[in-house]
Amino acid sequence: MTLENLSRNKSFGGWHQQHNHHASSLNCKMRFAIYLPPQATAGTKVPVLYWLSGLTCTDENFMQKAGAHRIAAELGIAIVAPDTSPRGKEVADDPEGAYDLGKGAGFYVNATQPPWQSHYQMYDYVVQELPALIEAQFPVSGRRSIAGHSMGGHGALIIAIRNPEHYQSVSAFSPISNPMNCPWGQKAFSAYLGPQEDTWRQYDASELMRTANRFVPALVDQGEADNFLHTELKPETLLTAAQTSGYPLQLRRHEGYDHSYYFIASFIDEHLRFHRTHLKS
Amino acid sequence: MTLENLSRNKSFGGWHQQHNHHASSLNCKMRFAIYLPPQATAGTKVPVLYWLSGLTCTDENFMQKAGAHRIAAELGIAIVAPDTSPRGKEVADDPEGAYDLGKGAGFYVNATQPPWQSHYQMYDYVVQELPALIEAQFPVSGRRSIAGHSMGGHGALIIAIRNPEHYQSVSAFSPISNPMNCPWGQKAFSAYLGPQEDTWRQYDASELMRTANRFVPALVDQGEADNFLHTELKPETLLTAAQTSGYPLQLRRHEGYDHSYYFIASFIDEHLRFHRTHLKS
Repeated sequence: MTLENLSRNKSFGGWHQQHNHHASSLNCKMRFAIYLPPQATAGTKVPVLYWLSGLTCTDENFMQKAGAHRIAAELGIAIVAPDTSPRGKEVADDPEGAYDLGKGAGFYVNATQPPWQSHYQMYDYVVQELPALIEAQFPVSGRRSIAGHSMGGHGALIIAIRNPEHYQSVSAFSPISNPMNCPWGQKAFSAYLGPQEDTWRQYDASELMRTANRFVPALVDQGEADNFLHTELKPETLLTAAQTSGYPLQLRRHEGYDHSYYFIASFIDEHLRFHRTHLKS
Repeated sequence: MTLENLSRNKSFGGWHQQHNHHASSLNCKMRFAIYLPPQATAGTKVPVLYWLSGLTCTDENFMQKAGAHRIAAELGIAIVAPDTSPRGKEVADDPEGAYDLGKGAGFYVNATQPPWQSHYQMYDYVVQELPALIEAQFPVSGRRSIAGHSMGGHGALIIAIRNPEHYQSVSAFSPISNPMNCPWGQKAFSAYLGPQEDTWRQYDASELMRTANRFVPALVDQGEADNFLHTELKPETLLTAAQTSGYPLQLRRHEGYDHSYYFIASFIDEHLRFHRTHLKS
């Protein structure tokens, strides 16, 4: 549990920091970023929003582009952004350097197939190891919410639905809502989990939401001008699943918005206010 | 004056766009970004804040990292971000690829020395050509303010001080306040303007502010934890100059903040509100 501090920047009266640590679940060195609002430095423990990024991202994209520090400082919420896959020379990668498999594309699953299974255990890292580390090392409480974008929206949804006791709320921008039935998800699940589709269901938000009987309040925003909407994201499948189980999902569609961080920035304030409501209660 | 649209993203109800155009003052193709707030699309002409970025930047840094669209949308201000130098294969660059000379480091001057003078005319581009283009092509009024960061803070200050009739207000984060007396400025001015220091004064904010007799309201923010504060930035020189001429400069120092976009994001709302006051009146 040794942290190596890599950077720190004052931001809206709080602190953005990057740290390296050895992740035992992933068997490699990992970098993460944390934003600590001003309230956290006064000895007060604040709740944490975990943010999971999308394909090709690192811990930096959300911290630099989402414009979330302002509202996090106002509301007194810490934000933790892990990387999107294991990293390092020893970690397997797609031989052709595809952006949607291997490094930068961990898909928040526990891989069972070679050559991936020795490092690609992102589900365990995000659910267990990282929160334990954060809660041991920083002035944060055990109250957690989780959010993400695209592949990270998928990750946030499956993690919250499967672990309702660990998260107060979940939100997603443009999530891959039914990965079993889209090209990105099928490619990743085939590689990491093998050909047995039955093993895929535990990582499919629509499958999980359809059969859930314990609920985490969920907010999903989707841009109508998103190039990936119909082929990869399929929010209507998630909505049908929620209606089947009575899952408390609010799905909002936004005319003109695309898949970029400009969309995320436009609505991140509302997501943090949504989480704050549930983190407080 | 033909524009080639490269991208458009809806952001806070308005639009972020990137365009290419042939810049006659620079004799090359240039990219710029514009943020049009929702008010501008309703047929209403809005005022414009020009943003000049620092060393190594393009039109993208400010738009992606400053978190400025939210407040620009609220206040009804367009933002235009040019690139920081001429670009293209035909454009001279530092032979050693230095980050502080050549491409990405135009310093907002009109170069007089070979090999720079055939393209490095960033002063004319920002003062004349770009505003003419913007006002011809977009629903904006002729009311302008200007701001920037580091090298771009230098650029914003010298341009506003020398052209008080063109700008309602000026602001800067961490500007290079006295380039004649710091390593970055001396290197760039020697190369672009030659060894005669007399020709440097027209591009030195402290020199210009000290002798000014027409004023533009000016706001400067400086972080106290900025690594470049004492060697490159020297805001105290600017303050002394303002006191000499009675220039309306508000210089604020902020404990703990560094040279990064996290600093800019933390105070950009206040800069836009400052500009809005002067753009309205």
